[in-house]
Formats: sequence, C-alpha cells, structure tokens
Amino acid sequence: MRAVLLAAGEGRRLRPLFDRPKPLVHLLGLALIERNILALRECGIKDFLVITGCYSDEVRDYLGSGEKYGVSINYLHNPSWKKGNGLSAYTFHKDYRQDEKFVLLMSDHIFELDLLKAFLTEAEDVKQDELLLAADSRLEKVYDLDECTKVKSRENYAVKLGKRLDDFNAVDCGLFIGTGSLLEALSCSIERGAYALTDAVNLMAGLGKVKLHFVEDGWVDVDDYQSYKQAERVLLKSLVPKKDGFISRIFNRRFSLRITRLLAATAVTPNQVTLLSFLTAAAAAVSFAMAKPFTGGVLAQLASILDGADGEISRLKFLKSRFGEMLDSILDRYGDYLIVIGMVYSWYRTSGNTMALLIGAGALAGMPMSMLFKEKFRNVYGKPFIPEVHDGILCYFPANRDGRLFIIMLGGILNLLPAALVLLAAVTHLQAFIRLYNVRKSSLT
Amino acid sequence: MRAVLLAAGEGRRLRPLFDRPKPLVHLLGLALIERNILALRECGIKDFLVITGCYSDEVRDYLGSGEKYGVSINYLHNPSWKKGNGLSAYTFHKDYRQDEKFVLLMSDHIFELDLLKAFLTEAEDVKQDELLLAADSRLEKVYDLDECTKVKSRENYAVKLGKRLDDFNAVDCGLFIGTGSLLEALSCSIERGAYALTDAVNLMAGLGKVKLHFVEDGWVDVDDYQSYKQAERVLLKSLVPKKDGFISRIFNRRFSLRITRLLAATAVTPNQVTLLSFLTAAAAAVSFAMAKPFTGGVLAQLASILDGADGEISRLKFLKSRFGEMLDSILDRYGDYLIVIGMVYSWYRTSGNTMALLIGAGALAGMPMSMLFKEKFRNVYGKPFIPEVHDGILCYFPANRDGRLFIIMLGGILNLLPAALVLLAAVTHLQAFIRLYNVRKSSLT
Repeated sequence: MRAVLLAAGEGRRLRPLFDRPKPLVHLLGLALIERNILALRECGIKDFLVITGCYSDEVRDYLGSGEKYGVSINYLHNPSWKKGNGLSAYTFHKDYRQDEKFVLLMSDHIFELDLLKAFLTEAEDVKQDELLLAADSRLEKVYDLDECTKVKSRENYAVKLGKRLDDFNAVDCGLFIGTGSLLEALSCSIERGAYALTDAVNLMAGLGKVKLHFVEDGWVDVDDYQSYKQAERVLLKSLVPKKDGFISRIFNRRFSLRITRLLAATAVTPNQVTLLSFLTAAAAAVSFAMAKPFTGGVLAQLASILDGADGEISRLKFLKSRFGEMLDSILDRYGDYLIVIGMVYSWYRTSGNTMALLIGAGALAGMPMSMLFKEKFRNVYGKPFIPEVHDGILCYFPANRDGRLFIIMLGGILNLLPAALVLLAAVTHLQAFIRLYNVRKSSLT
Repeated sequence: MRAVLLAAGEGRRLRPLFDRPKPLVHLLGLALIERNILALRECGIKDFLVITGCYSDEVRDYLGSGEKYGVSINYLHNPSWKKGNGLSAYTFHKDYRQDEKFVLLMSDHIFELDLLKAFLTEAEDVKQDELLLAADSRLEKVYDLDECTKVKSRENYAVKLGKRLDDFNAVDCGLFIGTGSLLEALSCSIERGAYALTDAVNLMAGLGKVKLHFVEDGWVDVDDYQSYKQAERVLLKSLVPKKDGFISRIFNRRFSLRITRLLAATAVTPNQVTLLSFLTAAAAAVSFAMAKPFTGGVLAQLASILDGADGEISRLKFLKSRFGEMLDSILDRYGDYLIVIGMVYSWYRTSGNTMALLIGAGALAGMPMSMLFKEKFRNVYGKPFIPEVHDGILCYFPANRDGRLFIIMLGGILNLLPAALVLLAAVTHLQAFIRLYNVRKSSLT
C-alpha cells in the first residue's frame, strides 16, 4: 500500500514561530512530515507520494528521494493549493493505479505509532467504494476542538462532516484509507466548486460510504504553538512502554522523558546514551569505592534514568537497532557489576568484615538473574516473560533493574550499604527461585 | 496422518535373550515399539494403529489406549500372522479410510528422530498410486547386510526387491508412506499366495510405483543381540547435538553417553540429573573451599559431564520439558557461581591477597555472560546464536560452560586456582566484548 501525504498548505499560524515551512517544522528532533514517513515505514509502508503546494522546493529538498529513510518518495505538485486541500488531494489522480488502496494523511498531524498500526490493520476490510476515516469520539479530550472538523456518526459510519457542525459526536483525525471512489468524489465536488477535502468526504458520507475507525487520543493537528506543545506531550507519553517496571513508571520516567526531550533535538544517538548510562554507573561505582555513598547513590539512580532514555530516544526518532539492544543489555549488566563491586569494596575496607565478601558475592551473582530468566523464558516458551503477568505479586519485588538501582540509591543516600547489599542478594535470588517455582507450577496445570 | 505399526511377528532370534515379546523388548529405557510411537509423536503424529499377531495381549496391555503417551492407539489383530507380514499389513484394509496416506513401519526397527522427520516431510509429494520407501544405499555401512531386504533401484525408484537379490544397490529400511494402492497390491499378491509385504512392494516396483527416499545411517533392524547393541550405539550417537561445545564434543560426551546408557534403564528423570549435576557442582565448591582442589576439579568436571547427560536422557526417552530447560539454565548458573566462590575463598584464605577478591569478582561476574549474550541474541535476531558460526575462531575459546568447567578442572588438579580464576575472568569478559564487536560489525555490513 502507498501513502499519500498532503503537504501543500502554507501553515500561516505556525509560520511566525519557526523559520521553515510547516511540514518541515521540527518536533522532538524530526520534521513533522519526516516523522509521519518514518512511522509509516515502521508499519511496513515503503512507497510514498508527497503532494506539495506552497513550499514545493523546500519539501523536496528536505526529503529527497527517500533513500536516506530506506523508502521511495515521489512528488506531485498542486499549483492551485490556495484554493483548498481537496484540490491537492485530487492531484493524486494523475498517479493513481487502478483498484489501488492508499493511506492518505495530513503531513502536519502527528500520530502515535500504535494508532497508525491499529488503523492500518483495518485497510484490508475497506471496500472498493468506501473510505475509512480515523475519528476521535472522546470530545472532552480532543485538543483545540474549535479548529477540528466535526463528524456526526451513526454506529461506525459518518453521516455528515464540517468545521461548523452543531450536532456532532466525533472529530476527523486527518487520516484515511482511500480508494478510487474518493478521487471520484473529489472530482465531483471540485466540479461543483467545493475545493476542500471535507466536501468530498461529505459527499461520500451522504451515500453512507465513510466508515469510521475510532481512536482514543494519540494524535494532534499541529496548527499553532499550543498544539505544537501538545504534540510534544502526546509523543513523549507514548514512549513509555506498556510493560514498565514499577520504580521506572512512578519515578524514572518523570526524569528520563525530560532528558529525552532535551536530547531529541540534538544528534545524540541512543547508543551514545547507553554508553553514558554505563559511564554514569561506573562513576557511581567509583564514588562508592571512594566512600562517597551519597554521590554513588545519586549517580546509580541517574544511570537507571538514562537507561530508560536510550530506549525512549530510539523509539522517538525511529532509531531502534538490534545492535543497540545487545549493547544496552550487556552494558547494563556491567554497570550493575561495577556498582556492586564498589559497594562491597567500601563496606569491606571500612569494616574488615568477611560477611561483606560473602554477601557481596551473593549480590553480584544476583544482578543478572532477572534478565537471564526472562530471556531464557522467552526462548523456551516462545513468548515474552511479562513480570506483570507471570510474576503476580512478585512484580512489585524490586529485583528488576529499576528496583535494584533504587535499592542502591537508597543504600547510598542513607549510608546503609550493608543493608542494601543484603537486600539485593536476597531479592534477586528469591525472585529467581520463585519464578522457577511458578513456571513449574504452571507447567503442571 | 496415521501411523501403522507392524507388531505381529514372533521375533524368534531375540526371544531367548529377553523375557518379553520383541516389540516390547526394552532398549535404552523404552520398548522398541514405544520408542517408535514416541518418535512419531515428536513428528506430529497422534493417531496410531498397531497390528498384532503372536503376542497380541501383551502388546495391548503394555501400550494401552495411548493416553499415557498423549496419543491414540488402536489395534487390529491378524490371527494368521505366521503366514507372513504381508497378511498383517493387509489387515489394515479393515480400517482404511478412503484416499488416506499413512506411515507404515516395522515396530522392531529403530529410527533416529531426524531420519523420521526428514522422511515424513516427503509424505505430501507421494502420489495416490505410489509407495514411498526409505532405503539405505550406503551398503558398506549397513548393519547385517545378509538379513536385509535388498533393493535394486534406478534413480529414485525401486525396480526389484528381495532378500536373495544378487544385483542390488540399496536396502529396505522397513519404513513406508503408503496409500490405498499398497493395500490393493497386498490383496493381489495374497490372492496369488505370496504373503510377504515384500511381495506386494515388488508388484508395485514392477509398475514403477515405488519411490525411494534415501537415508544415511540412523536406523537398525533389531533382530539379534548384535543388532540390539548396534541400535544402542546408533541411538546414543544421535543424542550428541550437532552444535556442541568443543570440550564437550571431544571429552565430556565420552562419559556422559555412558552415564546416559546406564540411567536410561532406570526411572531417573532428566530433572533429577540436572539436580545431581548442580549438587555435584556444589560439592566441588565445598571441596575447593576446604582446600581440596584436586577433588574440587574432578567434581567440577563431573558436574559438566552430568550437565550433558540430562539433555541426552530427555532426548533419548522423549522427556523434554520446558520447565526442565529453565531449571537446567538457572541451576547451571548457580553451580558456576558456587564453584567460583569456593575457589576464591580458598585462594584468599591461604594468601590473604586482595587481588584474589578482585579477580574473583571478575570471574564470578563473567560466568553468566555467555548465556546472557546467546539468549539475548536469539530474542533480538530471531535466530539462535551458534558459536561455531557467529564466534568464528572464538568458538575454540573456553568461555562456554564446557570450556569454563574444564579450566576449573585443570586449575583444581594442577593446584593452580589463581591462574584458573584469572583465565576465567579474562576469557568470559573478552568473549562478551568480542561478540558485541562482531555483532556491530555484521550489523554495519
């Protein structure tokens, strides 16, 4: 399936704030249109058609052939873009291939990746005379309702659309699966002198041919500074994985998302953040060893926060790599090891207590057990181990990395290294054995 | 697809040696016919038909409904089994379902699992008027050639079969994919007074309808004591995984296969052997800590050997379980940890050298790295990490478990614990970093 991106408008309201055309305005490190292309690429779309108007040359120069994104981008120009976006959309008829279905979207909207994925899975069921439109019915949550195109729906079909509709129960998100019938409707409405895309969609809605796909949040029409900031918030929020550690969710993400926002605009790569997280852990280890537990604890927590930021940046800027995943896993283990060794060294040097060595060995050996179990489980059972599901009440057990580094932070700032090490040794091994027990139990039933 | 097992004969030559009917003779812990049923179950076959003759009641009593194997077993009896195995095979016509394809095999032959799997993948291509026969053309390697049914083949088809054939280039392995046409051929040859299965196959061969699937080794017709021992050898050899560690292949398997042979006849489960391996590692750790490095080294190597035997027994007796895999992985890590802690304790107590602690921490932290990397790799890349392929020359690096425990054994019996610990710390971490480097290199090309 091809994607058609409308990038013809002038974007007057955003213009004074940025020195570039609206589709090229940077948001968290990517131009608006670039983000849509990369997000659709993640959904498996490789072939793009960009319809330009006002800033044709700038858009072409910026995106090029698509080679740098690993996709193909072609362009069509609509010189009469001022008349309305229906004319721009209709420009696509020059390149339309018979019976083709396509995704059509506004290049200045942003969409969460999960929203796009869910929307595109419905493409197959769209009939040749229909149009599928993403609509948001949670009106109280829709941002800048005044500016939205309203939709009056009946069940899963649109009845009427318009900016000035009084009776409505959803809004148009600017995301469609179209077929040749949309181009026919556009041709009709243009002949009647109605040049907006909404006019053609309205025509089809009147025939009962506009099916709705309801979304919940996860999209913003970037129109002015307020919606620009709102888009930032929506995207940052979408970076938190659904299955996140307890400490990570309630504590780390508050900070890591801020770091991600700052770093997004720079050229810093996720792997560089991974390395920075490791170096921070190493600095924590040195601080512990130099009998500065407070600094050590704070640095350990910072390492934990940065350990979330690398993944956030990779998802935000579509920079996921398999090497990055490997590097992250391995360096995290080394970071853990160094911190525990620093803590044990500090305890043993000040106390001379041989128990420090034994407990230290226990804590050291416990650090990789959670990951070992999870990775092995996934390979043996062919499905991911999800602490929230498989661990039961144990998922609040601070034996995953966010929990372990939190224990270390507390041990550091409260100057209670022995207690922290005992706790680490206890929770990590206990978790491993309880997990084994749970696996055995569930394999017997 | 159903499987039809011929278990009607008397097995006169084997009878004096065992106190049970031939299909029920135990070989490495399973009755011959039981092993065929379990091996076919591994290939996805769940529906069995056993044709009995001489020892009808004994066979039924032993196998039952198949419930204990998780399959369904039905029986047909051939009272005239003495006349020939063609009559027994023909008994199946009573239960034959139109256009059905079926696997037909001699219940007293043994087949390697891989051989069966490869043979069954060809079932789909067998035409309705054809018969597929497994044949071994490596005549110099065929065991007890005199007793075999010989096959004269032209390309992939049999021309003529018989025990007393002079001109032949393969032998019949007693494994078929049949269709209704085999039953018709049996009916024909029985009418003519020829009661052997080979007579019917010969009839079809004359019409060019017996296709051959060539196998290389991996099967034995268990007929007498010599072939019984040969079957043991073939099965034990098949237990060594194709991708095995270097030390494991050249050293451990020599011993673990003997242990497996001994334990196969008992009710000892793979998980019990896993536990025994762990306890042996724990005993090695205690020996090291008690300054008995020689004993420690020997026990560590024994733990390594037992670590191979659990998998061998599970494959040999079809007892693989996902919990078993988890248990094995986790207990192996704990075994490693304990041994290293025992070694470090011994070194530090006798020397008081703090370097022992640092190097010990390094060795301890290094123990799980190989597994961590391999499991993560498999999850990230969706394919197993195979040291022989992905490690290049590094696959001879003793950083996998067999190699690590071999270093520990040498360190123990040569009383060189410090050297062994330095080596362990070095190879494990070096391996992790070289692997990361290799992954990065290959992801860039």
